[in-house]
Amino acid sequence: MSFDLTPIGRVESSLTDAGAAPRQGDEGAPDAWLVLQPDVLDGLDGIRPGARLIVLTWLDRASRDVLRVHPRDDVSNPMRGVFSTRSADRPNPIGLHPVEVLAVEGNRVHVRPLEALDGTPVVDLKPDLAVGQG
Amino acid sequence: MSFDLTPIGRVESSLTDAGAAPRQGDEGAPDAWLVLQPDVLDGLDGIRPGARLIVLTWLDRASRDVLRVHPRDDVSNPMRGVFSTRSADRPNPIGLHPVEVLAVEGNRVHVRPLEALDGTPVVDLKPDLAVGQG
Repeated sequence: MSFDLTPIGRVESSLTDAGAAPRQGDEGAPDAWLVLQPDVLDGLDGIRPGARLIVLTWLDRASRDVLRVHPRDDVSNPMRGVFSTRSADRPNPIGLHPVEVLAVEGNRVHVRPLEALDGTPVVDLKPDLAVGQG
Repeated sequence: MSFDLTPIGRVESSLTDAGAAPRQGDEGAPDAWLVLQPDVLDGLDGIRPGARLIVLTWLDRASRDVLRVHPRDDVSNPMRGVFSTRSADRPNPIGLHPVEVLAVEGNRVHVRPLEALDGTPVVDLKPDLAVGQG
């Protein structure tokens, strides 16, 4: 059994090189735009500058058959199961990115910081209501 | 274009009635078990009691064609876009559930609190490393 995940938009970013991208948004990631598909525009109602969101992406360049990794790709770190790490490589490579909304212009949402690469599919946006509540 | 999301396991919970379930884990949700598929067991390596995880689920009873809702199903709340709410109804109904690990027994992970219904597919587990970092 599986489920069909449909992108609601794409990341538009200056980050195009996976090797050079920061591993996490708080490690020097730039601001970026989320370009949503016109048919989900109604879902943005209520999102304003200053809002804190969690952007869910599909990390389409990840390997899905990896279950153990050296955390942060550092071989001096002992291997661990992917579910105890934030590795992009995992059975379902969903990325969670906490961001601040800078602007909303039609179907385009300006956010920061975002470490996702240019072109990465966006699959959901949720309010980051409180600490640890996702 | 779409992506194929494959469950890594299921929720085993005393919650079976969607109408009676708490809306969020911190509103009286019970503890529950995550029963993982044997083929992803290596991914659990490093997860121990006391760990804080974000459980990602596929809310398979949600409506995917909903873009605006009354928050918390309360008609006195003005309608808002689903991306500014935690409604289960949304184009890609992925649930984010912050939990604490109580025990790990083989492919079974005991967690609390979890508001997801019995049988809900689990699609990923991630460390809840720090405030807002997902």
